[in-house]
Order: sequence, then structure tokens, then C-alpha cells
Amino acid sequence: MSLVIMKFGGSSLEDDGKMKLVARKIIAKKNTYDNVVVVVSAPGDTTDNLLKMADKITSSPPGREMDMLLATGEMVSASLLAMALGSMCEKVVAMTGPQAGILANSNYTCAKIKKVNPKKIKIQLAKRNIVIVAGFQALNPRGDITTLGRGGSDLTAVALAAALKANFCEIYSDVEGVYTTDPRVVKNAKKIDYISYDEMLEMAGSGARVLQSRSVEVAKKFNIEIHSRSTFSENQGTIITSEEKIRRKKMEALLISGITFDENQVKFTIVDLPDVPGVAAKIFSRLAKIGINVDMIIQSAAVGKKNDISFTVSKRDIKKTQMELDKTAAELKDVVIVCDEHVAKVSIIGIGMKSNAGVAAQMFEILHKKGINIEMISTSEIKISCIVDELDMEKAVKELHKGFGLSKE
Amino acid sequence: MSLVIMKFGGSSLEDDGKMKLVARKIIAKKNTYDNVVVVVSAPGDTTDNLLKMADKITSSPPGREMDMLLATGEMVSASLLAMALGSMCEKVVAMTGPQAGILANSNYTCAKIKKVNPKKIKIQLAKRNIVIVAGFQALNPRGDITTLGRGGSDLTAVALAAALKANFCEIYSDVEGVYTTDPRVVKNAKKIDYISYDEMLEMAGSGARVLQSRSVEVAKKFNIEIHSRSTFSENQGTIITSEEKIRRKKMEALLISGITFDENQVKFTIVDLPDVPGVAAKIFSRLAKIGINVDMIIQSAAVGKKNDISFTVSKRDIKKTQMELDKTAAELKDVVIVCDEHVAKVSIIGIGMKSNAGVAAQMFEILHKKGINIEMISTSEIKISCIVDELDMEKAVKELHKGFGLSKE
Repeated sequence: MSLVIMKFGGSSLEDDGKMKLVARKIIAKKNTYDNVVVVVSAPGDTTDNLLKMADKITSSPPGREMDMLLATGEMVSASLLAMALGSMCEKVVAMTGPQAGILANSNYTCAKIKKVNPKKIKIQLAKRNIVIVAGFQALNPRGDITTLGRGGSDLTAVALAAALKANFCEIYSDVEGVYTTDPRVVKNAKKIDYISYDEMLEMAGSGARVLQSRSVEVAKKFNIEIHSRSTFSENQGTIITSEEKIRRKKMEALLISGITFDENQVKFTIVDLPDVPGVAAKIFSRLAKIGINVDMIIQSAAVGKKNDISFTVSKRDIKKTQMELDKTAAELKDVVIVCDEHVAKVSIIGIGMKSNAGVAAQMFEILHKKGINIEMISTSEIKISCIVDELDMEKAVKELHKGFGLSKE
Repeated sequence: MSLVIMKFGGSSLEDDGKMKLVARKIIAKKNTYDNVVVVVSAPGDTTDNLLKMADKITSSPPGREMDMLLATGEMVSASLLAMALGSMCEKVVAMTGPQAGILANSNYTCAKIKKVNPKKIKIQLAKRNIVIVAGFQALNPRGDITTLGRGGSDLTAVALAAALKANFCEIYSDVEGVYTTDPRVVKNAKKIDYISYDEMLEMAGSGARVLQSRSVEVAKKFNIEIHSRSTFSENQGTIITSEEKIRRKKMEALLISGITFDENQVKFTIVDLPDVPGVAAKIFSRLAKIGINVDMIIQSAAVGKKNDISFTVSKRDIKKTQMELDKTAAELKDVVIVCDEHVAKVSIIGIGMKSNAGVAAQMFEILHKKGINIEMISTSEIKISCIVDELDMEKAVKELHKGFGLSKE
């Protein structure tokens, strides 16, 4: 029996007209595959509106009640979409996340899926019903509703695809797929036809907002092919799949698949840090303890007995980081803390890098030629990131996009 | 341990300011009683808006999905109200109807409560938490959400009061309680201090919209004292309790407690019905079969071998009734169907009638003096209803209100 998971984002469900369009797409799919399970996000701005309502009541809402509130958005989509399909004479059943057997832990507002028990879904599929599942929500061991964090409906879709052994998982949104870079910055950015899980993870972690990272991790783990595509066109979108499958499809992998950027970065530098073992480790473990995610780190070579150490954090952590570093500065004499808010991160991503040593050099050369100064560098197997002045970011993205041959002809 | 149930209607929860007012009222109650369980309706127009959304999708929504949709409204109130109480440093837990152990049958959109299993509520009360329960919703044996019909949150409140052996049940709305008649029609209508369950049932069944009838039936069965009062004042409202308790409180019961009216009536007359046994029964059993609730019936004395029979139905059933009667007319020759849409029902209600034979005569006399023609009459132990021309309705209500001494001095 063939089975497809279709997931629709909020912008595909924001009014009755779009709901009906989505319903017709589901019916078309059901005509080709034996079974279809649909996962829905909350319609349009519903989640934001619920957050605003809560914010008017209190600035520190309890997580448990927040999740009970937020879960209503997806219940609304799921029930309305089931009504739309019913009105088109389809057999259909809507389920909440808990009813669908999505079981998670009790980390309210950002719970992790622990298990999927798709018994109820299977019973309905056996009756030839289309099943609509409210995304983003799960049941915790206490019998309460928990939610899976921003983009959690993607995760619901992929987790169901794994549990139900789906042929593939389609993620519908208002964009055509994954692009070589943001088309708002580079007009001739191209849609990527195939991208590997690892590349997609690096893209998602470096600023591209098409798919939730955890959903890609789960897809990789269970080898679920994801098809990211638009609700509003019939065009092929982007297939996210294994590296092996891509290599089989393409004669040769592209050197670079995509360029990402992130303006949401701040660079801290600790000047004249004593070159004593354990000092740097202490600073970073303290930051980790208060929940600050440090992204890139460089340490200058020791001159005499002093070091400079620079690292980047997300802009929203700027105050907490500053306070923590001020404590450190008070403990260690003659240490100076410098904060630079005007930086951005530009990254190139591609599995082709693995077998091609010259990529980093090529990147630096492209930036250098245009007079763009690189402040920090970090590399992984399939990604190279540079911190540049935020004023240079757009130029850097455009030049790299052109220089690595990603632009449309 | 003392325990009070407080139920708040949608107009008491329509914005954050009102939510906070409600939260303060709950805290004040918690300072006087050991435990407080709160039942909430959906905020403001939420339920109507959800119905409109469904209506845009389909004119015949499936009941199961309709209930999943509608249940979200009360989940929103419950979670937001819990946040408001939490922000005032109260220990509080919000629950959906299913979590609160409200178990019902599978009659979607108008389910009946079958059982209340308040285990989870008791656990939370033992931890000194205030418990907020989303009203109107229940769990059916299939594990799906069902809703209890219009006014179902009243029923949730009374059912919980019975299951938890509450001292009493407060029903908060935007009116001060139950009035001798609708203050919009009779300006000097008085708030009733005490009313018996039976009188309240007759009031609710005859047009007064303060409390849902089934909730009053359940309150009577379990002898739960209901206090109907306003969220927006500290005034004593109306106590709905047993006849015995009222008799103990008052030296003598008032002859009449209240006057109700209902414009939503249509009178059908079947002229020249053959006076053959079983003909009338057949007509009414047919109407019952298609779900039409016949209210008042009169049959004229047989003249020769023909009868006239008149009855009233709700205005929304007019078409279905007409079609059914047309079939009857086709079967029985020479029968004429007359429909009068311009009628209204006026009722007087009071337990004092039981021990006072002259009440009906007094009612007819009051109406006769003002030249109001009575078209039909029906009586019960504590109610007398008359069908009058709709143009006479308001005058009839005013005169009866004055004539039975209900008006304020």
C-alpha cells in the first residue's frame, strides 16, 4: 500500500478559498496513492494572535497553559480542512496530535517527540479515510498537551512519515522550494532540485527558513525523502534526500549548493585574556550554563602571555552575554570586553566541498577581490562561514552566488 | 472541605481586562472557601466566529469535526484565565473537558453527559490548585471530543458541582440574575431572590434565557443550589433551589414568580379533521418522527363528525411541518391546513399556583379587561400559557406583570 504524507503551512490555510484549494490537492494525491495523511499548521496569523492574547494577560505565561492555548490553532485548521474534504464527498477524519498518537516529553512549548503510536491513524486508513492531523502538538506522559516549538508541524509530518513508513513526505508552503540563496537578496537565485539532508541542515542552521532543522534530522535518521514545494503551483520543488541518491541522480555534485546569511549575529572579543589553561573553557561553560549558544570562536595566537578570543552569539542573547562577561572581567584583571553588533555571517554550503580542497581559498579570493574583509572563519565538512561587516553582507552573498556559478543564465 | 463551582459566560471573558476582573473574583472566593473549580465558556463571539468559518467551508459540516473546532473556544478561555491567575501568584491548572473527566455520548454537537470522573481535578485540588475547566466539551467512548449544545458550559458546571459535592454553583453572566420578566419589555421588572428548580425550568422552557434547561434539571436531581449573578457587580443574584428551602425562607410563596413570553411560535390549525380514533395521534407521531417539537395542542369539540385541531411549533420548523401536513391533507379528503405566524405565547409561572385555584381565572380576567383575545390555553401544575396575537404580546406581559403584583413600587 502506498502512503504519502502532505504537510501544509499556515499561509496555505489562511482562508476558506485556500482551504478548498488544499482539499483539491489532497484529493488529486489520493487518486494516485492508496493512502494520504495530511498534517496542518494553524491558519495564517492564528498562532501569532494567540501569543498576543497571552501577552496581554501576562509577560511570563506558564508553559503548560501556553501549550493548551497554542494547540487550538492547529485543531481549527484540521477540523476545517476535514469539513472541506467532506463537502467534496471524501471520507475523512480529523485528529488532534494526541489522538494521532504523537507522544512527547513535558518540555512545554518546545517538547521533543518521544514516540509515535499511529494505531488510530492506521484504523482510519484501513477504512479508506483520509486522515488530517493537527501538527505541532503532542501528548506528554501526564496526559497534557505539549507543543513542539516553531516549525513543529514539519516535525509532526516527518515523524508520521517514519512511523507509517510513508513513500515520501511533502512539505507545502508559499515558496517553490529551497533556493541557492534568498531570492529577495539575489534576484537570479535558482531553485535547487536536489539537496542532501546534511546540506539542508547546514542551510537551515545558517539562516534559510524553509524547513525546521529537527524535522530534517529525523528525516535523515529514518531516510525519509522530503519534497519541499509550493501549494500555489504544480511545479516540482526541492527534494531533500540522501547524499547517495543525489550522487546517483547527478553525474557530479555541484561544488556549492547554496549560500546563506545571517544578520542576527553579534561578535564579542575578550582582549588580553591571560594565556592560562582552562580560562577559555571556563568562560564558555559559564555561557552554556545560562543557555547561550556560542556559534563561531577564534582565538588569536598568544603574544607574550596574553590572548584575544572572539566569538559570536545571537543578537537576542547580547545582554545576558554582556552581563556574564562583565563578571569574568571583574575576576580577571586587565581584561577588556569589546562587542561588535555590526557583523553578519555569510556561509557557503555543498557536499561537493568534501572532495574539493580549493573551495575555501576560492571563497576568500572572491571576497578579497571585492575588498570585503573577513573577520572570522569557521569550517565544517560541507560548510564554510565567514563573519563580515554587516554593510558588506549583501555584496558578499551576491558575489559568492555569482562566483560559484549558482546564478541563472 | 468547602468547595464552590464558579462558571463564567463568554461576555465575562471577552478581553484581557475582563479576564483579570474574573481572576480577581476567583481569588476573592478562594479566600473564603477551601477549593474553587471554575468552568468557562468561549470568550465573547468566539463560538459564533468559529461557526462562521465552518459555514464558509460547507453548509453541512460533519458533527465530529464541528465539535473539534468548537471545543477550541473554551480551551482558549481556560488557558488564558489560568495565565491571568498565575500572573497574580495563584496556583492554578487549566483542563480541557476530556482532561477534567467529563464523559459523554457520541451525539456530536449535542452530546449528553454520561458520567463525570473528577479524579484529575481532585488530585489538583489536593495540591491546593485552583482548577479551570473548559466548559461545553466532553470525551466520548471513541476518544473524540463532543460538545454539549448551546449553554453546555452551564451543564458542565452543575455536573461538576454534583460530582465534587460542591457547596453551591455560581453561574456568572452579564445580567444580575433571573427577573420577573424581561426588563427590556417591562421596565420595572424585579430581580427574583429565590426561585425553585421547577419554576426555573418552566421559565427557561418558556423563553427566559438565563440558564440552560438541562443544567437546571441536573441541579434539581442532585439538589445543587445555583446562584445566577453578574460578573460586573457584587449584588446578590437569584438563588435557584428546592421548593422546600424557598418555603422555609419565605413566610408565604408568591402567587406568581415570573412572566415569560415567546414570539418564536407558529400556530397550525387542521380544519375539518375526520373524528376517527387515531387520526390525531398519527399526525403527531409523524411530526415527532421528523424531529418537530409540538408545544401546545387544542382540539375543538366534535361537531357532527368533524374536528378542528390546533397546535403550535417553533418558527424554525414551519416549512417541515407544512410539508408533513400537506401529505396528511392529501391522504384525508376535505381537510384544510391553516397556518398563523402572527402569534405569541405568554406564560405565568409560580409554585404558589399549586395551592391557589383562582390563578387561571385571574389571568384570563386581566387579559380580557384589556381586550386581549386568548387563542389557546395550556396549563401545568405551576404554569399557565396563553397564545395571543403577537401584536398583543407586549401589552399582555405588562398587564400580567402589574396585575400579579410583580412590579417594583
